[in-house]
Amino acid sequence: MIETPYLLFLGDAPDMLAAKVAIGIRDWRPDHAVGQISLPGCGADLGLTEMTLAEAKAAGAKTLVIGVANRGGVISAAWKDVLIKALEMGYDLASGLHNLLRDEGDLVAAAQTHGGTLHDVRVPTDGYPIANGVTRSGKRCLAVGTDCSVGKMYTALAMDAEMQKRGMKSTFRATGQTGILITGHGVPLDAVIADFMAGSVEYLTPDNEDDHWDLIEGQGSLFHVSYSGVTMALVHGGQPDALILCHEPTRSHMRGLPDYTVPSLEELRDVALPLAQRANAACKIVGISVNTQHLTEDEAVKYLAETEERMGLPAVDPYRHGAGRLVDALAAI
Amino acid sequence: MIETPYLLFLGDAPDMLAAKVAIGIRDWRPDHAVGQISLPGCGADLGLTEMTLAEAKAAGAKTLVIGVANRGGVISAAWKDVLIKALEMGYDLASGLHNLLRDEGDLVAAAQTHGGTLHDVRVPTDGYPIANGVTRSGKRCLAVGTDCSVGKMYTALAMDAEMQKRGMKSTFRATGQTGILITGHGVPLDAVIADFMAGSVEYLTPDNEDDHWDLIEGQGSLFHVSYSGVTMALVHGGQPDALILCHEPTRSHMRGLPDYTVPSLEELRDVALPLAQRANAACKIVGISVNTQHLTEDEAVKYLAETEERMGLPAVDPYRHGAGRLVDALAAI
Repeated sequence: MIETPYLLFLGDAPDMLAAKVAIGIRDWRPDHAVGQISLPGCGADLGLTEMTLAEAKAAGAKTLVIGVANRGGVISAAWKDVLIKALEMGYDLASGLHNLLRDEGDLVAAAQTHGGTLHDVRVPTDGYPIANGVTRSGKRCLAVGTDCSVGKMYTALAMDAEMQKRGMKSTFRATGQTGILITGHGVPLDAVIADFMAGSVEYLTPDNEDDHWDLIEGQGSLFHVSYSGVTMALVHGGQPDALILCHEPTRSHMRGLPDYTVPSLEELRDVALPLAQRANAACKIVGISVNTQHLTEDEAVKYLAETEERMGLPAVDPYRHGAGRLVDALAAI
Repeated sequence: MIETPYLLFLGDAPDMLAAKVAIGIRDWRPDHAVGQISLPGCGADLGLTEMTLAEAKAAGAKTLVIGVANRGGVISAAWKDVLIKALEMGYDLASGLHNLLRDEGDLVAAAQTHGGTLHDVRVPTDGYPIANGVTRSGKRCLAVGTDCSVGKMYTALAMDAEMQKRGMKSTFRATGQTGILITGHGVPLDAVIADFMAGSVEYLTPDNEDDHWDLIEGQGSLFHVSYSGVTMALVHGGQPDALILCHEPTRSHMRGLPDYTVPSLEELRDVALPLAQRANAACKIVGISVNTQHLTEDEAVKYLAETEERMGLPAVDPYRHGAGRLVDALAAI
């Protein structure tokens, strides 16, 4: 559990694209961020109050979150100055970078001296059980995609936000480093040991009130041969009551696999539903989330209408038009 | 790669059941074992020559393999005496035990002093890539099961032995600790980090001659909610040209999951084949391997005949009747 609120470190990010994590926190957990801190030459601006470490500390910030990708895979001397000063002032640090904070001797030393915690959210922190497959109380919704990076995290976050707005009981359950940094907790599923994958998902989505929904962040795709095993663990460990099918209609091949075509929504439906029903016989597909960022508004509306007609399920782009109809579909279960 | 030949350590095994690893080596790689070594009170006997460490060393043994499960999850003082003496005499040690040799300070010290290697085959030794899904040359056969522990390893080993006998080109590819100890190499798939599972299977079954068959050891089951992600990585990372369906007909529920029924062979076929064809469009199901150990000979023959008729595929128990017909089916591809 990462202590909130955060100060968001943007470093010397060349552009907004590099600040994906910080943007996610600003958009989905604005209450978690007291402000932002940048280095000279930073090309990203979240529009939050720019603060010094001391100002943010006075405003209550507990954790400095690295909200930006680093260049060249090293933590630069300029970054280190800020990170060490933060530890000296009593901050914890949180990072989803590939190179771990815990592998940096000076950060480890400063954390020990000042009693700070280094959160490397790419590394599992808990001992997970082997999945037992026992039916859990409460309800769960899982986003599954025709490919990787089609909007599964966004869909689950948008549905959770809409459910909160309606006063429904819901929790977004993060399974990747961006989601973990946004919400402060979760399971970095792609870093879990094979035997414990499904068990870590059971652990993440425990028994709950009968009318509570876990919105589980999806990973990979059942059709992506590099990561399908991770997706399978979500489908079985998550015991979903509801699946949302996620799709990006302009992709010419699977992400990173030029020889693999993207399956249709029908193919995804026909593979995912029987697999999910193995762990939860009552599982239903309730809706379709389409990432229409590469379509014009007219194209998007037309594509969504055609998809809805063809599949017999509500089809929406939650970024463009909101997640309301997906939540309606969940609420109707 | 574990150096052969082995001396097989039986310790104080209470019975033959506890000596599963040693039995596997004796049965499948008899040339790998120069003899056996037991402690007083040992209730297992492989029928190999009982040897002292010195005698086996003189006979060429390079590695002392722990061929037995340990009681209570500790490596006892009586075992330690033999293991340390072996290291002092220049042996390597190999083990598939849950408690690792490398976690025992005295073994580590003796190995360092005498230049020996400690092989803990439950722990991955190589850095595996992320799977790239690129089509590889050569042919691959994967055993998939309706449940865990239905005879997938036995089936692949029996087919490999039959192919060797016929002069066909084949390699058994181990994916679990018993298989790795039997053959001296492999990937302990259940201990691989999630993101690298399918890549480790690609690494294990690389490009090969066009008429060479990898017989890939299966793990788990697509229908076993605890381990299905591991199986999925084999189905996609293995790019099988041929699947063998494995089944144990008397099981009343999935292993370790009392609330889960065992699927039919038809259900396994209908789920496994489309998933496998994602990575290899030419994949076929070529035969059925039934573990009939709990049936009489008459019952077994009747069950196999009925299954063969029903499924339209050769159905055999390779332990009872040999793997010849499964190899015939592979050769006919």
